[in-house]
Amino acid sequence: MLPKSKIKVVQSLKHKKNRINSNLFLVEGIKSFDELLKSNYKIEFTIISKETLANNKHYKNLKDLYVVSSAEINKLSGLKNNKSLISVVHKKNQKKESIDFSNLIIALDSVSDPGNLGTIIRIADWFNIKSILCSKNTVDLYNSKVIQSSMGSFTRVDVFYDNLEDIMGSKDISVFGTSTDGTDINNFEKPDKGIILFGSESQGVREHLKKYVDKWISVKKNGGAESLNVSVSVGIILHKLT
Amino acid sequence: MLPKSKIKVVQSLKHKKNRINSNLFLVEGIKSFDELLKSNYKIEFTIISKETLANNKHYKNLKDLYVVSSAEINKLSGLKNNKSLISVVHKKNQKKESIDFSNLIIALDSVSDPGNLGTIIRIADWFNIKSILCSKNTVDLYNSKVIQSSMGSFTRVDVFYDNLEDIMGSKDISVFGTSTDGTDINNFEKPDKGIILFGSESQGVREHLKKYVDKWISVKKNGGAESLNVSVSVGIILHKLT
Repeated sequence: MLPKSKIKVVQSLKHKKNRINSNLFLVEGIKSFDELLKSNYKIEFTIISKETLANNKHYKNLKDLYVVSSAEINKLSGLKNNKSLISVVHKKNQKKESIDFSNLIIALDSVSDPGNLGTIIRIADWFNIKSILCSKNTVDLYNSKVIQSSMGSFTRVDVFYDNLEDIMGSKDISVFGTSTDGTDINNFEKPDKGIILFGSESQGVREHLKKYVDKWISVKKNGGAESLNVSVSVGIILHKLT
Repeated sequence: MLPKSKIKVVQSLKHKKNRINSNLFLVEGIKSFDELLKSNYKIEFTIISKETLANNKHYKNLKDLYVVSSAEINKLSGLKNNKSLISVVHKKNQKKESIDFSNLIIALDSVSDPGNLGTIIRIADWFNIKSILCSKNTVDLYNSKVIQSSMGSFTRVDVFYDNLEDIMGSKDISVFGTSTDGTDINNFEKPDKGIILFGSESQGVREHLKKYVDKWISVKKNGGAESLNVSVSVGIILHKLT
């Protein structure tokens, strides 16, 4: 039997305000949950469908499980087609001091699409980038769609929110800004460290951040499209630079 | 005044079956509509909000416009947050004979996410790839979300649906399959022509297509993620091969 109080917690965590106040967030689906179990994230409780529990023997000794029908999961979920499980998880305390400036780092300015942020976290994980800095207006890491599209990579990549100008202004570190008219990434020497800064597709890097950029880099086009999706740019540039 | 019959057409075109029967599809939003006007697609009619018409002087002499409130556009639209316009457009008759096998071509096997297909069309356009072949179970080009996420690039890239085995089996053309354990794309020589074949993220290229692959290629990882988003793989591989 699923207590109403638990339903209330899940519903509340669909809103960023409540995720901030409670320090909790939702992880949905088997893939993300499996990665969660391997990580040091602390799970508060998990609501799981009978079928999911029956088909995943490794869940059978987990504590704090509430078993319901898959229809109930689907109804509770904020995602399309989640019929497996919803887990309530404690956020990690991300300390700015733990950002590893001795390696390449990604910075995102004003990335608002949750799918893009999740995909970028997954790309960072693929290329072994450990830290992502986000401007404060970038979409919340703990948004269910970000977590889902990161496919578990959120457990291995640290995401920090701050004023980017504070970090780029205070650190003696190179900033590589991405734009449509910088140096062709194919003619650009791999740096050992530094911040690779991406803006939104529509606006690019915002004006007040441009003065911190030491060098502009680009993925050159030879066709008709006006822009590349920001996560695709991140993929191409990280593949080239790592 | 917007006739009910027009509303009915728009509603019907949200379903693939009706798009097939009528040979019509929907284009939503200013960006895609502007690209449409530059193309040789034939527009049947367009429903537009007063504000959009007032703010876009170049629309004022267009025929077959129905002007409504932005709330009405929003209500009619299948997309989130479209308050500008919805256009009903005639499909182009894509003939297999027009596929340009003298250049690199993309083939997609079982790509189901509309955002991915749209993003891949945009990437193809960026790198000047003119044709995309899709397996019959790949998401419909004329799905509104595909059209929207292609950001107008659907007007410049031809997308064909067929049994991929029929094309790959009948043509004397190299097929480069993408997988996680092929030749590192960094050690792979640029081909002048050929088909680059991508499978879905979860399954990869399906078994019955593997025998047509001449060479397997990969984007190598050095981190923890299990896979890359298929559109990100397409971006990295096209950047390397074009």
